[in-house]
Amino acid sequence: MPLAIVLVSGGLDSCVVAATAALDHDLAFLHLSYGQRTQERERQAFAAIADHYQVEQRLAVDVSYMQQIGGSSLIDRDLPVPVEHEDTASIPTTYVPFRNANILGIGVAWAETIAARDVFIGAHEIGAAYPDCRQVFFAAYNQMVAAGTRPNHPIQVQTPLIDLDKTAIVRRGLELRAPLHLTWSCYQNQEKACGRCHSCQLRLQGFRAAGLEDPVTYEE
Amino acid sequence: MPLAIVLVSGGLDSCVVAATAALDHDLAFLHLSYGQRTQERERQAFAAIADHYQVEQRLAVDVSYMQQIGGSSLIDRDLPVPVEHEDTASIPTTYVPFRNANILGIGVAWAETIAARDVFIGAHEIGAAYPDCRQVFFAAYNQMVAAGTRPNHPIQVQTPLIDLDKTAIVRRGLELRAPLHLTWSCYQNQEKACGRCHSCQLRLQGFRAAGLEDPVTYEE
Repeated sequence: MPLAIVLVSGGLDSCVVAATAALDHDLAFLHLSYGQRTQERERQAFAAIADHYQVEQRLAVDVSYMQQIGGSSLIDRDLPVPVEHEDTASIPTTYVPFRNANILGIGVAWAETIAARDVFIGAHEIGAAYPDCRQVFFAAYNQMVAAGTRPNHPIQVQTPLIDLDKTAIVRRGLELRAPLHLTWSCYQNQEKACGRCHSCQLRLQGFRAAGLEDPVTYEE
Repeated sequence: MPLAIVLVSGGLDSCVVAATAALDHDLAFLHLSYGQRTQERERQAFAAIADHYQVEQRLAVDVSYMQQIGGSSLIDRDLPVPVEHEDTASIPTTYVPFRNANILGIGVAWAETIAARDVFIGAHEIGAAYPDCRQVFFAAYNQMVAAGTRPNHPIQVQTPLIDLDKTAIVRRGLELRAPLHLTWSCYQNQEKACGRCHSCQLRLQGFRAAGLEDPVTYEE
């Protein structure tokens, strides 16, 4: 089977992406920590999901330079994490400028080195106000990859969740027997998920709308 | 004047780019070290050029994750640096996969954070066999930036040297009174330039063809 790199944060979305890619690819897993509050917990979830899929090629990259650049409450410890996301039309303060372009750049560089054909990322447009989560961005990104890499080795960024909402992602994960119990989504804590941050809220709504119980434990 | 970020390695090309950008922009300087052999010497050249242009906003980012990815003699200390570059049609082993996409990603993220309008890079197509040094790549990159950043804050990657050869770059530098004596190009050494590596050879040929003496000292 062709080799695919999967960007695995340790969260719900990337776990479902890994399950999707595993259907018809050999897998290599890439984890990025960029100084976010919950990076240790996310790394633990990454390793558990990689073990589940028996992935041998793993690369964990420290991109904490993003913390130097700042401009986001996810990486700037002086900004409060928004507990609820009130206005989906505006760009939230958890936005890391140009984050997807940066992390895909690492994925594509690694793909060129290990001769992977695809780079999978769990981005989805629905509910995301970030400019670099939209289909139009990924289409432009693939044009740029085609122009900037070796012509004898085409690489494609794949976004199998792009049109799905959280509920559909939860359902897809169950269909594909993705190990959702191993995932971590909370922005706030490292032990028990807070259940209140934007990421926990989205996740909980997704499970609720799918009529399922989230296997992860939350704070009281 | 509008704010521009200039990617300044400390080499000849980026010094001439800084001189070009300085004509009609306020400057912010971005330096990247990616585990290359000569990074200390390059950082010193960066600081000297920044002092010359009285640049206050400076960001030095460690992207040594590129060393983890490997695949290039510039960052993989087990591969020999090619002394002379025999075959310009093939891609040399000094190629860092997708390097320009990675470093521009950092430049654009910083541009979004500090509201810079332009990101200048000293790439040139002539004599470069790297896919991510070509005009077609930068055009595709700018399309991707437009799709992936805040719509109210357009950012453009600028490549003022794209059509120039080394001789023309040396001449341009002199016209603009760029501080070429502060630059560093050698891939091999940190004290005196070796004069033999591909980068030294290109530089020396450029000065020779321009009928000028290189102000930098070389090994005997």
